[in-house]
Amino acid sequence: MSELRFDIIKQHWVIIATERGRRPRDFQNVPKVIDTVACPFCYGYESKTPPEIFAIREYGAANTPGWKVRVIPNKYPALRVEGDVKSRGYGLYNVREGIGAHEVIIETPDHKKSMADFSQEEITDVLKAYRARFLDLRNDFRLRYMVLFKNHGVQAGASLSHSHSQLIAVPLTPPVASMELEVSREFYQKNERCIFCDLIEFELNAGVRVVSETSDYIVTAPYASCFPFELRLYPKQHLHDFAVMNDMQLSNLALAMKDMLQRIKVVLGDPPYNFILHNSPPVHNRPGKPDYWGSIKWDYHWHIELVPRLTQIAGFEWGTGFYINSTSPEDAAAFLRDADLSL
Amino acid sequence: MSELRFDIIKQHWVIIATERGRRPRDFQNVPKVIDTVACPFCYGYESKTPPEIFAIREYGAANTPGWKVRVIPNKYPALRVEGDVKSRGYGLYNVREGIGAHEVIIETPDHKKSMADFSQEEITDVLKAYRARFLDLRNDFRLRYMVLFKNHGVQAGASLSHSHSQLIAVPLTPPVASMELEVSREFYQKNERCIFCDLIEFELNAGVRVVSETSDYIVTAPYASCFPFELRLYPKQHLHDFAVMNDMQLSNLALAMKDMLQRIKVVLGDPPYNFILHNSPPVHNRPGKPDYWGSIKWDYHWHIELVPRLTQIAGFEWGTGFYINSTSPEDAAAFLRDADLSL
Repeated sequence: MSELRFDIIKQHWVIIATERGRRPRDFQNVPKVIDTVACPFCYGYESKTPPEIFAIREYGAANTPGWKVRVIPNKYPALRVEGDVKSRGYGLYNVREGIGAHEVIIETPDHKKSMADFSQEEITDVLKAYRARFLDLRNDFRLRYMVLFKNHGVQAGASLSHSHSQLIAVPLTPPVASMELEVSREFYQKNERCIFCDLIEFELNAGVRVVSETSDYIVTAPYASCFPFELRLYPKQHLHDFAVMNDMQLSNLALAMKDMLQRIKVVLGDPPYNFILHNSPPVHNRPGKPDYWGSIKWDYHWHIELVPRLTQIAGFEWGTGFYINSTSPEDAAAFLRDADLSL
Repeated sequence: MSELRFDIIKQHWVIIATERGRRPRDFQNVPKVIDTVACPFCYGYESKTPPEIFAIREYGAANTPGWKVRVIPNKYPALRVEGDVKSRGYGLYNVREGIGAHEVIIETPDHKKSMADFSQEEITDVLKAYRARFLDLRNDFRLRYMVLFKNHGVQAGASLSHSHSQLIAVPLTPPVASMELEVSREFYQKNERCIFCDLIEFELNAGVRVVSETSDYIVTAPYASCFPFELRLYPKQHLHDFAVMNDMQLSNLALAMKDMLQRIKVVLGDPPYNFILHNSPPVHNRPGKPDYWGSIKWDYHWHIELVPRLTQIAGFEWGTGFYINSTSPEDAAAFLRDADLSL
C-alpha cells in the first residue's frame, strides 16, 4: 500500500510508492529503456499484463491480439483503488492511504512506431481511449482529479519504449491544477471572460509565438516558457472539458497533435518529451463550498502542455521554483514554424 | 540582457537568458560534461574566466595560480547586475529586466577531486567563500534573495566536471523560499516556536529517518521525500542565517557535510546530485509591510537540501506538482546509516 505524505514546510504532497521496492543498487546504473523481445505491450504477450480495462479492437476477445488501443492497470501502480481517503496525523505530519487509479494506455500494437508517425485515425483512437477512461473514472467520487500524461524516451521518464501514455487519478486536486483553476476562476469572476480565450486572442494577434494554427486548434510557445521549445495546444473555441468532446472534435485534435509532434521530431531530432493534458476536474470535486467549480464551464479551458526534455532541471530550479530558459519562445516558435514536414 | 517573465496562469517566474543563444542543433546531442585539457577552472587558465571577485589564496596575485577557492562571475550569466528592477506590462503578461548576480565558486584547484573527498579544512574554505559572497551581495538592496547551489554530475545539470558551486542573487523572493518563510513565520506567530526546531526534535525521537548526528548537526531523510535518498542537513541549534556563522561553526559544518556526501557516494556509487542552501533573505527584503521579515531571527532555520538525481522528473510530476518516490525515506536512511565509510 502506498502512502500520500504531506511536506509541512514546502506544502507539497508526495506519493511514497514502494511497490517496486527500489534499493540502492537499482540506481547504480543509469536507467535504460527496457526493450526486450518479449515486450509486454506487444501482440501475444497480453497475459503478461494485468487484464485490460478498455480496448478498441479490430478483432479478437479481451486480452488477446486484435486491439488497436489497449488500456490496462499499471503493474507497479503509484496508487490503488482499494482503501480509505481519510487523512491521519503523525507528529507534525499529515498522511493518507495512497488510493487512486494508475492506468497505462498502450497506443499501438506496433512496437517501433512513435506517436508523431501515427496516422490521424490512429491518434484519434488513442484520444477516444483517453475520453472513455476519463468518463469511467469520474464514477468514483473519491477521485478528485485525473492526470493524463505521456513520457516519450528515457530522459522523459519512460521505462518501456513501446508507445504508451498513462492516466493517474488522485484523491486530491494537485497543486498545478489548483493554481490554474483558481487563477482562471478569479479572472472569470472579475471580467466575465475566460483568461485562456484572452491569451489565445493575444497570441494570435502577436503572432511571434504561434507555431501552427488550424480551424479549431492553436499551438504556441508560452510567453514564460520554462524550457526550450515548450509548447501549449489549445482549442480555439472555449471548451472546458476534454471528456465531452465528440468524435469529429477528437479527429481534428488528432491532426493538430500530429502536426505538433512532427515539428518537434523534425526540428529537434526525435527528442524525449512529456505531454500533459490539463483538464477540468470532475464536477463532484467541490472542496470547501458547494459551488466551488460551479462556473467551471465558463472559466476553465482545457489544453495540452508539451515539454521536450532537452535540459536538466538543476539545483537552481529545484531550490527556487524559478526556471532559466536559454532559448526564447519567440526563437523556438520560429524554428518550429519553419520546419520542413515533407521530409 | 535577460528577461524575467511571469506566467499568469501557472504563477511562476522564468528567466529567459539567451546569452548562450541555444539553437535546435545544440540540443540534438545528449549534453555531456565538457572535460577539456584546458579546463578554465584549473591553475594557469585564470585568464579564460572573468576576473575573480573573491579568493582564498596560499600564494600569488589575483587571477594567477595559488588560490584554494576562487569566485568568479559566470561567463554566461542568467542575470546581470546592470539594469532596472521595475516591471512592465506586455498585454496580459508581466516582464522585468533580468537584473541580479550569477557567480561561480571554484571549490578546489584539483581538477579531479570531488567534494566528498575534500578534507574538512578544504570544505571549510568553500563555506567561508559562500559566507563572504552572501555578506557582500547583501549590500545591493535590489537583490532580495541569494540561492547557493551545487550541481554535481551531468544528470544534475553540471556543464563542467571541475568541482564548483554557484550563487545566484535574484530581485524577487523565489516561490520555494517564500513558501518556507511564510509557513515558518505563521507557525512561529501561533506557537512562539520554530517549526524546524520542532521537526528536528520529532525526528531525533523517531530515529527512523536520521542518517547521522554530530554535536551540532543532524542529517535526515525528510518524511515526505520527493526523491529517493533526498536529505536535509540542519544545525541542531536554532540559527536563522548561514552568513553570520563563525569559523568554528563552519568547520563543524564541513565535517557534517563531508560525512553526508561520503555516505551518498559509498551507498549510491557517486551519483549525480544537487544541493541547495536554504537561508534567510537579507534584512532589506521587506515586501509589503515594514516588519515582513522582522521576526525572522526566531522563525526561520537555515538548512541544506541534498537531492541525488537517480530518477527522472516525468510528465506526472511536471503536470501536477505531486511527486512519486519509490524508496521510502525510512529505507533510504537505514541504507545510509549503515554505510561503511572506512572503504
